[in-house]
Amino acid sequence: MHTPSRLSKVLISNVTLATSPRTPLLHGQWLLIEGNTIHSFGEMEEIPSTPDAQHIDGTGKIVMPGLINAHNHCAMSLFRGLADDLELSEWLNEHIFPAEANNVTPEMVYWCSKLAAAEMILSGTTTVADGYFYENQAARAFLETGMRAVPAQGIIDFPAPGVPDPTKNIEAAENFLQEWQNRDQRITPALFAHSPYTCSPETLQRAKALAQKYHTTFFIHAAESRHEQQILLNPQGSSPIKHLAALELLDNETVLIHGIWLDDADRELISKSLAGIVICPSSHFKLASGIAEVPEMEQQGIRTGLGTDGCASNNNLDMFQEMDLLAKSQKLRTLDATALPASHALRAATTGNAALLGLDKVGKIATGYKADLILLDMQQPHLQPCYSQDFLVYNATGADVETVIINGDIVLKEREFTSLDVEECMAEVRTLARTFGAL
Amino acid sequence: MHTPSRLSKVLISNVTLATSPRTPLLHGQWLLIEGNTIHSFGEMEEIPSTPDAQHIDGTGKIVMPGLINAHNHCAMSLFRGLADDLELSEWLNEHIFPAEANNVTPEMVYWCSKLAAAEMILSGTTTVADGYFYENQAARAFLETGMRAVPAQGIIDFPAPGVPDPTKNIEAAENFLQEWQNRDQRITPALFAHSPYTCSPETLQRAKALAQKYHTTFFIHAAESRHEQQILLNPQGSSPIKHLAALELLDNETVLIHGIWLDDADRELISKSLAGIVICPSSHFKLASGIAEVPEMEQQGIRTGLGTDGCASNNNLDMFQEMDLLAKSQKLRTLDATALPASHALRAATTGNAALLGLDKVGKIATGYKADLILLDMQQPHLQPCYSQDFLVYNATGADVETVIINGDIVLKEREFTSLDVEECMAEVRTLARTFGAL
Repeated sequence: MHTPSRLSKVLISNVTLATSPRTPLLHGQWLLIEGNTIHSFGEMEEIPSTPDAQHIDGTGKIVMPGLINAHNHCAMSLFRGLADDLELSEWLNEHIFPAEANNVTPEMVYWCSKLAAAEMILSGTTTVADGYFYENQAARAFLETGMRAVPAQGIIDFPAPGVPDPTKNIEAAENFLQEWQNRDQRITPALFAHSPYTCSPETLQRAKALAQKYHTTFFIHAAESRHEQQILLNPQGSSPIKHLAALELLDNETVLIHGIWLDDADRELISKSLAGIVICPSSHFKLASGIAEVPEMEQQGIRTGLGTDGCASNNNLDMFQEMDLLAKSQKLRTLDATALPASHALRAATTGNAALLGLDKVGKIATGYKADLILLDMQQPHLQPCYSQDFLVYNATGADVETVIINGDIVLKEREFTSLDVEECMAEVRTLARTFGAL
Repeated sequence: MHTPSRLSKVLISNVTLATSPRTPLLHGQWLLIEGNTIHSFGEMEEIPSTPDAQHIDGTGKIVMPGLINAHNHCAMSLFRGLADDLELSEWLNEHIFPAEANNVTPEMVYWCSKLAAAEMILSGTTTVADGYFYENQAARAFLETGMRAVPAQGIIDFPAPGVPDPTKNIEAAENFLQEWQNRDQRITPALFAHSPYTCSPETLQRAKALAQKYHTTFFIHAAESRHEQQILLNPQGSSPIKHLAALELLDNETVLIHGIWLDDADRELISKSLAGIVICPSSHFKLASGIAEVPEMEQQGIRTGLGTDGCASNNNLDMFQEMDLLAKSQKLRTLDATALPASHALRAATTGNAALLGLDKVGKIATGYKADLILLDMQQPHLQPCYSQDFLVYNATGADVETVIINGDIVLKEREFTSLDVEECMAEVRTLARTFGAL
């Protein structure tokens, strides 16, 4: 079990800081963490004397805010690469749903979420928003690995893992919220209604009311595929977004996942409501879903964020790659290389996602912000030379992350976990995967 | 200086083999290298006794053919991230060309090509096709790092680095071919005419004739941007491809770089000629050039390959990321998740590129093939579980490469170079980059 050490101090010296997406890099800096908070930072000439602090030599390294992954189904790591290169409905209905029907157990969710957490930490992600079933096991995995997380219990109108009777899905969700509310400052429990096409209007409204009762986020997949409108259950509007708006489900605590197939009226509804949209570029490419129109959304005032999606449709959880693909895909779509600059992608993965998830003082380097920080080793050929922090989007990958600090705790140091047994995670997941013919 | 040790033997034991793109993974194998060649491989039960062989324990690792990068401008590593998020002509004319005009020296080409070679080896590339000026310095860098390479001397009708008088560009190219022909079995010198819009018809024809005289590859950028036709010098046809065809420049030793903006007639000309096309997905995205229609080309019998382009427009040289983006971008473009499977991307980066570059017995694991091999560490969270070799395209990155063997020589072992001083390369390039305000 990982226990936060709130009174500890960590001093990073002689380091380059990428404080926030539009601020130029600061070289030759120190940064002091006290407890779970960024206490202060400044130039090396004025480094404080802190003999009681744990010291990290930042020479040749950069410190940036830990990345936030605003959409994942961590347990689906079990299905990574199980069924590649297939059309979305075939992938879901003939491979993923059947695999899930027989193999999702509390142990599976626990071990696969823990493996996903290990992968995310190793690639610089310090916060994840997750949605699945047996979500209490995912929350347990996040707590044990030290991650900040917004685990969301899945709600669907079919028999689901842990919720064999769908009429009990709201009750199961409330049990989850009660169990995890106020349990640990790193864990913010939430709700995930699967989609407008797998939940009835009544279920959606009951789920949203429950989220409001607990003042938490209501996530829902929407507008991922061209054909979604045709499979809506009892449509209340002429598009998935109009359907959700007619049910009064859109507000600033609703987060829509995907948001690819939107018309102007959809965007207007989302913008007015202050609901957020999370883009998952790799998954949108791999499942041939399309490219979300991010710059246009931003111009209309829609808040957008970034996620990996479950790694069954990605197939990894590296947010550096998502930033790169977010920026590049918008250039490609518009045939305009200026369409979405690197700084926008950095913002999406840090302060943008923090805002969508309602996380306070998370996502940048500033006094009083949470000490969720990652150190990257810049002394590598693919990161040389370095002219600006754009390199974090276009050159770097998760493998460049060396040290990870979450809520003031060093969870990864020089790519070694300080408390997580990653070999055990891999062995447990391999055992589960043998059912499907894995190595 | 790196000298091949031709009589040496290397035995890799207890390893998983990815022999070729469509062959299922073989587990529990041994593989024996003799000199520069793959001698044999088989199941562990029948491992040969070779007390004189250097031994590599392959437990938990996979061996695959070294990746081939069919398009690079290695020296441009100096400009990596110097000017991001700009439109192609502004990027070229206002940033890259001026930077090149004042800063391309023999030393710059040598050190930056060497840095690029280090980056490529660290990410699993064992062969590169390069095109630049002072290409003898690039060839020297490749030879010293142990890479297999097709360095191609640049030809352009403007004053260029090392060729201040453009009327001497063919003469300079011939000097390069003479200097490097038959010098080392790893180095195959070639020619790179910059483009139909920077070389006159006469220059293009003289360059092609020179390539034919030396039985080597004639590379040329073509059909990268929508507007290319408008800037053609003395057009001989209604598109860049028709222009090249009218000049009789297309044959099976011509390799076109980019090939994005093609009509049916262009494709027909290319297909009939047996010329190849190299796709550079990251660069095509970052410069907002477009998506090449790869499955359609393949159906018309066009030979396609894969490259990174110079890392000023990428911004790294990781061929694993190019394979991933090649596969995903075709799914996206066609909105068909089956459009281009992982095996196709693997083929492009291995046997496909070997065929385009005219390299004999390179690009797969088979008896008698060149021992250009890479070992990846599979015991990592993002590579677990493993159901098929698709993971090499969708999960892996260059950072997973642990050991690299080129032409039978171990050039990288557990991510340490056996002879290259990578710190020196980085320091030299950083010094050069200070001119532009780098760290």
